[in-house]
Amino acid sequence: MKLEDLKTPAFLIDLPRLKDNLQQIKDRAQKYAVSLRPHVKTHKTVEIARMQTTPEAPGITVSTLAEARFYQEAGFSDITYAFPITANKLAEATELTASLDIFNILLDQPQTLTAVENYGREHGVRFNVFLKVDCGYHRAGIDPTAPAGIELARRLAKSEYIEFRGILTHAGHSYHCSNPAEIVEIAEQERDVMARFADRLQQNEIACNTVSVGSTPTAMHAPDWQGVNEIRPGNYVFFDKFQADIGSCRPQQVAATVLTTVAAHYPARNQMLIDAGALALSKDTGAEHLGDDICFGAVQDYSGLKLFSISQEHGLITSENPIAFENFPVGRQLQIMPNHSCLTAALFPKYHVIEDNQVVDEWTPMRGW
Amino acid sequence: MKLEDLKTPAFLIDLPRLKDNLQQIKDRAQKYAVSLRPHVKTHKTVEIARMQTTPEAPGITVSTLAEARFYQEAGFSDITYAFPITANKLAEATELTASLDIFNILLDQPQTLTAVENYGREHGVRFNVFLKVDCGYHRAGIDPTAPAGIELARRLAKSEYIEFRGILTHAGHSYHCSNPAEIVEIAEQERDVMARFADRLQQNEIACNTVSVGSTPTAMHAPDWQGVNEIRPGNYVFFDKFQADIGSCRPQQVAATVLTTVAAHYPARNQMLIDAGALALSKDTGAEHLGDDICFGAVQDYSGLKLFSISQEHGLITSENPIAFENFPVGRQLQIMPNHSCLTAALFPKYHVIEDNQVVDEWTPMRGW
Repeated sequence: MKLEDLKTPAFLIDLPRLKDNLQQIKDRAQKYAVSLRPHVKTHKTVEIARMQTTPEAPGITVSTLAEARFYQEAGFSDITYAFPITANKLAEATELTASLDIFNILLDQPQTLTAVENYGREHGVRFNVFLKVDCGYHRAGIDPTAPAGIELARRLAKSEYIEFRGILTHAGHSYHCSNPAEIVEIAEQERDVMARFADRLQQNEIACNTVSVGSTPTAMHAPDWQGVNEIRPGNYVFFDKFQADIGSCRPQQVAATVLTTVAAHYPARNQMLIDAGALALSKDTGAEHLGDDICFGAVQDYSGLKLFSISQEHGLITSENPIAFENFPVGRQLQIMPNHSCLTAALFPKYHVIEDNQVVDEWTPMRGW
Repeated sequence: MKLEDLKTPAFLIDLPRLKDNLQQIKDRAQKYAVSLRPHVKTHKTVEIARMQTTPEAPGITVSTLAEARFYQEAGFSDITYAFPITANKLAEATELTASLDIFNILLDQPQTLTAVENYGREHGVRFNVFLKVDCGYHRAGIDPTAPAGIELARRLAKSEYIEFRGILTHAGHSYHCSNPAEIVEIAEQERDVMARFADRLQQNEIACNTVSVGSTPTAMHAPDWQGVNEIRPGNYVFFDKFQADIGSCRPQQVAATVLTTVAAHYPARNQMLIDAGALALSKDTGAEHLGDDICFGAVQDYSGLKLFSISQEHGLITSENPIAFENFPVGRQLQIMPNHSCLTAALFPKYHVIEDNQVVDEWTPMRGW
């Protein structure tokens, strides 16, 4: 099947670019001697997760328990659920602990640890637990400079209902960067905060096997991972306009686009309508901190066109110069590089895999919680 | 099943509020003697569409051809596809024209009309077509004051491959309003632009059976519909924070919320973490034009709490005053009123229907294109 035969909007994956992106991070993990435990939340497919893993490095990271169940059923055996666990999720976590070789949960609250211990005691289960650490993003995690974090680690290490697996962080503040040099600084901070905290644990005689970091910008630009032994990037499979804008990747590496059709011309207001709106692209506004005009994606091959407005199924494109409408006849297809591929991918029930403008495969992601 | 037994995040529909919202618009349509052809894109379920329609008024409006197929298979017989058709969608439109009693498409481009006529001639099909009119929103539609619009209507009316059904608009600029008085003004504009254009068609001896308008704010506040005979509101089934903020509805009418769990406390930064992020709420920023701080939904019953940041599965809540964390223990459920219920609903594979804090039903919406 050719691109022009696809119904629009459609989510396209450029297979050669995807493969290059996967290899690049595998190479970096190997070069710096860290385990790669990719975060699969960006794509949520069995196909890409199989390409990301190997028999020697089978581990993946998931963002929901439903993803964990999906990958367990697909034969994956080593999964980290990277959102702080709560008591109402322990029954599901118990089933996953029983059915997987390794199922890791994480927490950062003393009261959650108490709940996990109580549940473990009552149901005779021993959970694999990471301590979530805040390396500067300030979204989740213990303050690594405060005594309470060490106390929580000590309780984790001593608990008979818990196997303390190590410490884990996400340098999400790398997304506030404006260029590779700034990303390097965040990567060094992520690495140093975790290495120092691991040292403090050792000084306190608390064994910590795994020191896990992860974000795509820092995974792409970290100068080394001294003191770290696991990375968990996710977005790197596709990248997106945001990653290209902050210098995490080159625009030519972006492997996901949304195929759309030009539906109407409005020369009086120098605009044209496409059939990709908020349900095809998400309302993520991209790297707003860079100060550019807000747009909802980049029109591939036509950098002068601006997708400035979207509603549920409608997108409106304009340009600073008069649009050469004859180049964009009604019915013509365009490809939109999304601002945020994780959120865009999540809107499509299936992905179309392309190579040389041919559709070579269809992949079905999982959805829901 | 009780609310506290649901996995979070979950999309909740308050059944009594939903029924009241449906009845209110039915009553307004009856009072002002217009047909109600509800837009089902907000919910995309068979269940609610059946509650919105009657044997006497069976018509619905859809935003994608996949929705049209879904409702055709569920037994609906009268459907308007309210996005400008393009040539690559005519094969599907032909199948729907054949399988439904009435399937209406719309267009606003001379070249699209030519494509429709060519397709009709080649495949022996006669399409039901509306002319899309721009009543001031400037998203899609012909300029009703320009001669080209009358010319397009004349071609539609004369074509042997087309049944000209009438004129149709969407006053999406009602979403830019700040209060009911402003919405009334837009409703009057929507009505007057369409009534005048219908008069111009009549003066030009072009028969126009249906004059169709539609947006939830104008459907709620129009003082009358003189010269209009069909309305197509959609969002009114659930409403949302946006509709409440601009005065389209009262907050007590909002029938959709996202159930979430408090996952962590961060007293040092006066924040708490919930398990509803961008994949549960969408990144719609709501009624930004009202000048309030950006938030990603309202915490039900706790107006002082602000959901100020979301990433894929994480939401962060803060407050201007110190949060009384003892009132929000880790594991406690909260309900979030979404900024934009259409986009939020679209993220969930199923909806939980509640009455008196009990889950009384589960509905499965359609997805994709």
